Amino acid sequence: MVHIINSIHSSIQQSINAITRMYPHLSQLKQLPVIYHNQHDSSVVPIISGGGSGHEPAHFGYVGDGMLAAAISGPIFVPPCAEHILETIRFLHRGKGVFVIIKNFDTDIKEFSQAIHQARKEGIPVKYIISHDDISVEKSNFQIRHRGVAGTILLHKILGQAAKEGTSLDELEKLALSLSTSIATLGVATKSTTLPSQQLPIFDLPQGQISYGIGIHGEPGYRMVTFESSELLAVELINKIKMKFKWQEGQEFILLINNLGGTSKLEELVFTDDILQLLDIEGLKLSFIKTGHLITSLDMAGLSVTLCRVSNTFWLKALETPTNAFAW
Amino acid sequence: MVHIINSIHSSIQQSINAITRMYPHLSQLKQLPVIYHNQHDSSVVPIISGGGSGHEPAHFGYVGDGMLAAAISGPIFVPPCAEHILETIRFLHRGKGVFVIIKNFDTDIKEFSQAIHQARKEGIPVKYIISHDDISVEKSNFQIRHRGVAGTILLHKILGQAAKEGTSLDELEKLALSLSTSIATLGVATKSTTLPSQQLPIFDLPQGQISYGIGIHGEPGYRMVTFESSELLAVELINKIKMKFKWQEGQEFILLINNLGGTSKLEELVFTDDILQLLDIEGLKLSFIKTGHLITSLDMAGLSVTLCRVSNTFWLKALETPTNAFAW
Repeated sequence: MVHIINSIHSSIQQSINAITRMYPHLSQLKQLPVIYHNQHDSSVVPIISGGGSGHEPAHFGYVGDGMLAAAISGPIFVPPCAEHILETIRFLHRGKGVFVIIKNFDTDIKEFSQAIHQARKEGIPVKYIISHDDISVEKSNFQIRHRGVAGTILLHKILGQAAKEGTSLDELEKLALSLSTSIATLGVATKSTTLPSQQLPIFDLPQGQISYGIGIHGEPGYRMVTFESSELLAVELINKIKMKFKWQEGQEFILLINNLGGTSKLEELVFTDDILQLLDIEGLKLSFIKTGHLITSLDMAGLSVTLCRVSNTFWLKALETPTNAFAW
Repeated sequence: MVHIINSIHSSIQQSINAITRMYPHLSQLKQLPVIYHNQHDSSVVPIISGGGSGHEPAHFGYVGDGMLAAAISGPIFVPPCAEHILETIRFLHRGKGVFVIIKNFDTDIKEFSQAIHQARKEGIPVKYIISHDDISVEKSNFQIRHRGVAGTILLHKILGQAAKEGTSLDELEKLALSLSTSIATLGVATKSTTLPSQQLPIFDLPQGQISYGIGIHGEPGYRMVTFESSELLAVELINKIKMKFKWQEGQEFILLINNLGGTSKLEELVFTDDILQLLDIEGLKLSFIKTGHLITSLDMAGLSVTLCRVSNTFWLKALETPTNAFAW
């Protein structure tokens, strides 16, 4: 499998070069793998997030007005290091503190918490949320994995808009808790990603098979089955998500359909139609719908469904507010 | 290879269902595979385009304010039929005539010209442009193929904005001619697309090989070579495009980098950086840059580069003007 890069090591810097050239509101922090909003209002609590490379446009596509103030990248599928996170927190702190959005993976939490501890020692108020929208289960014990996946971008947009409207660090934490417990995501892969450093797919998926509950770093899912149709796939995912929400007719939701990388737009739209038909039958009110490449896993083929139960009209207003963040 | 669909025959209608549900300014014309802008200003000359499915978000992603008034779809990689094109022309004509953007493929021209002849017979003034930006060559005789590919969306945006600002049908034709001869595109594939009706790739691309000059319907390229690096790939494409323009330092260009479907965003950005570095060395002035999934070929992995020599500042103004067309 050919990957159009020059070397794994230069890829992050090259992607930063391209992005800062194309989007004037984005700049690189020193020589670090960090992109920040160079017109960020210093009276607003800055919100940051980050993660490994390979998930583009996450997270730097969400840096902009009323979204993230900065995004920190790590190597492919490896979280950013504590030192870079700390540098970013120091750089952005203008007396209001810094709010941090962390995706729930052990390795991410380790780096982010180290940076947060050090920043607090230096007198910088830092609050955080651990995004955990994935409802896939461990194959061994059927425990919900609660990884942070595509639903995380709802936190970026809604918290970012709240901060822009003057919400304090403490209030952002409350809002983040309320939001993060209202989101559920489940994904499926039709083809594993292949790391640029390797020639083989990360997990085996025989011809005609799909894998439910995959992760965004090549983690295989909890169940492999023969693909039947987009409709049956939609039924399986919605049934699982319904178990979390136990929703009732008329309840209001936000829907995201995330293209994990290599799936065609035609498939994405067909699947979206199947999901919409099912949710209509369930009688849910969908107040906001977004589809596309939101958080990818390199060229893995697959899709994920995110639903967020709306309990505050501000959430919808925040999602509808325009931003110059290029991936929103 | 799994495709997330239900059947090939229902895919177009399902994609139309999803799109008209998500974007309130888009409606389906009767039961036809046609999406139109339901708030189109009737004092403006309507511009239409169309093509086979499998190129999503083309062309319905470009229907909206200051872009297309309607887009007509055909089956996967098959142009829309004359009857549907004619119905669309009849529906949109409000006394100002209709302008048609056709991509240069024999099969497309056959259907579009049949519809245009009939519309004219019925007294509807119709003008058209045949988009032919592809500079790939025939392997047998090295003649330039001049297919209509990613550069076509520059016609959608610039002509659409011109129409919105009151440009007449005759003036649109002049502008279209000037534009269409100023655009050059060349693409490369790292993986062939697989049709949902088949299990095998359309063309063979052995491990580690790439194909220069591929089409958007699975047509193989003019030369297959071992992939070396993103940088060398950029050099090959820019050298070929340079032969068309014979540009000089300081000349002004528009740059599009099109993701043909299954290439990761990280690769797209690395390659964009390589192209930008080369064009900087050439001393070109890039006044507008856009990257992403513009016209795809299902899940084919690959990228294309489009350059457009700017000879009128209106072109840039038109590209910068916001639109609700969802794929712009």
